[in-house]
Amino acid sequence: MASPLPPLQTFQLNDFRLQCGATLPEATLAYRTHGALNADRSNAIVYPTSFAVTDADVAWLIGPGRILDPERYFIVALNMFGAGVSTSPSDMARDPGTGRFPSFSHVDNVTAQHALMTERFGVDRLALAYGWSMGAQQALHWAALFPHRVERVFAVCGAARTSVHNWVFLDGVRAALTADPAWDGARFTAHPERGLRAMGRIYAGWAFSQSFYRERAFERLGHADVESYLAAVWEPNFLRRDPHNLLSLIDTWQRCDISANDVFGGDLDRALGAITARVVHMAADTDLYFRARDIRAEAGRIPNGEYAELRTVWGHRAGNPDGSPGDEAAIRDAVERLLAR
Amino acid sequence: MASPLPPLQTFQLNDFRLQCGATLPEATLAYRTHGALNADRSNAIVYPTSFAVTDADVAWLIGPGRILDPERYFIVALNMFGAGVSTSPSDMARDPGTGRFPSFSHVDNVTAQHALMTERFGVDRLALAYGWSMGAQQALHWAALFPHRVERVFAVCGAARTSVHNWVFLDGVRAALTADPAWDGARFTAHPERGLRAMGRIYAGWAFSQSFYRERAFERLGHADVESYLAAVWEPNFLRRDPHNLLSLIDTWQRCDISANDVFGGDLDRALGAITARVVHMAADTDLYFRARDIRAEAGRIPNGEYAELRTVWGHRAGNPDGSPGDEAAIRDAVERLLAR
Repeated sequence: MASPLPPLQTFQLNDFRLQCGATLPEATLAYRTHGALNADRSNAIVYPTSFAVTDADVAWLIGPGRILDPERYFIVALNMFGAGVSTSPSDMARDPGTGRFPSFSHVDNVTAQHALMTERFGVDRLALAYGWSMGAQQALHWAALFPHRVERVFAVCGAARTSVHNWVFLDGVRAALTADPAWDGARFTAHPERGLRAMGRIYAGWAFSQSFYRERAFERLGHADVESYLAAVWEPNFLRRDPHNLLSLIDTWQRCDISANDVFGGDLDRALGAITARVVHMAADTDLYFRARDIRAEAGRIPNGEYAELRTVWGHRAGNPDGSPGDEAAIRDAVERLLAR
Repeated sequence: MASPLPPLQTFQLNDFRLQCGATLPEATLAYRTHGALNADRSNAIVYPTSFAVTDADVAWLIGPGRILDPERYFIVALNMFGAGVSTSPSDMARDPGTGRFPSFSHVDNVTAQHALMTERFGVDRLALAYGWSMGAQQALHWAALFPHRVERVFAVCGAARTSVHNWVFLDGVRAALTADPAWDGARFTAHPERGLRAMGRIYAGWAFSQSFYRERAFERLGHADVESYLAAVWEPNFLRRDPHNLLSLIDTWQRCDISANDVFGGDLDRALGAITARVVHMAADTDLYFRARDIRAEAGRIPNGEYAELRTVWGHRAGNPDGSPGDEAAIRDAVERLLAR
């Protein structure tokens, strides 16, 4: 977005009961709207955030000629719980009994988002739920838990259930972050610089494909060598985040399973089968943790699901293609085709 | 090996000059021999170790009917420098000037191994240099630096040059290990339990393929769930190692380039082209860091190089197929065919 961002707004939820059992007397969902809701309220798009970003970090793809067009759609960019903008450990009290922060699930995220869209905006039915990575997980939760509310889903590089391997990748990140001297076994007593830097370096190996590095694509992004790329991009990317928030988000991601709730009782087929929206479930062929094979399998179990694939060296990051015009064009065109149906 | 291991032996190298410029007044190469050298000394196999293991840890594949047969071959299992058996940081002095340990390269490893084989055993020509992972890197160094000494190479899941992506993976591991509170910026002041546990969990995500976890193959190995698998196998795997040795090995691996020496001056094509041995360069199709594509490309640049591929969910670990009988059979058969040529 070349133009300044619209103002950040908030929606209060009182006595908001989380899936983990805790009740938050006041939960805040922070969001930003781009574009205008039309008269019959039929042009709303929800765009929930991905891991360790704010909605502002991923607003670049909203704009005329970009993936989400605010001249035609009313785009509501939604900050996940735990990411430091909506209610998050950084502004919460710990449970006095356990000493822990309550755990957020994507059920909590989409329940709050659903309340916002229906109560504040009077939107009965979304034109589209769009998301990348953990955002795709939320978009799919929307469609499974509120099937009558969702006309279409565009999920890119995300899955309805976090795979075991993805869980292992995340657990390595979690273990590195909590290896930091500032971790006392329950909380960080200072900003964990070492752990956050390590997290960035680990993440860098997973977020792109091996071929991204083979082609030295970081040079095209302006970095002289791989070490300076990691130091300039990946370390700061996490150094500026709150570490308790990162642990909260990792927890949400590790436990993500669209069927792990009272509605579906752990039956993934039933959860995917409950989706009535037209779904494009798009993978990147080189994604190292949301694997194309897993996404294809899920797409085949969604009644109106369609599998699509990006051919790219950008790996998982192809789904947030800032800097990868080819992937952006492929996503934009696929979104446009979906919205035309 | 059901039978007890042969005794560990040592070979002393005096005033051993390392590629980094340091000279070790006394370096020790620790090895174990399996089987007997024949009369014309034509049946010797070198089997250098892989990352973070001793030769004993990977001796299981030596035995009648296994990959390396001690009834027909004289197998010399060689401990890499830095791994705690041959000369390693755990028994070395730091450089008084820099406060650092000298850096080991695979040139150093194979130079010492070459001295052992020629001086102690009078072996002019190896029947085979066999290695997995960093062991494969050493086997390829043997063939490039001592082409007249090597009849055959079997390199499985390893490359002559560490790829940029592999470097990034290793740098994440290094960063996690040194995130530990015991790291003071130059050394560990205590055993870094947190860092080593984190290292194990990170490694677990890379060492096997995503499909290994998708299939829950750890259950077939006797583990109830993925968390207990990581806790029972991957954490102890590194907790028992010396952390300075691990950093030394990571350094050797990160800098591995068969051409980065005075002989080849950085010209990889020339280094690969200098190999006269018959080489089987075998990849695993699902290896996440020694990628099949890279190995295939290297094989094509070795005059008598042949590319082979394991089809497996075991990823990188398929090349050390303890627990994967299908991969073991494929490697054993390919080694047998190579030795028959």
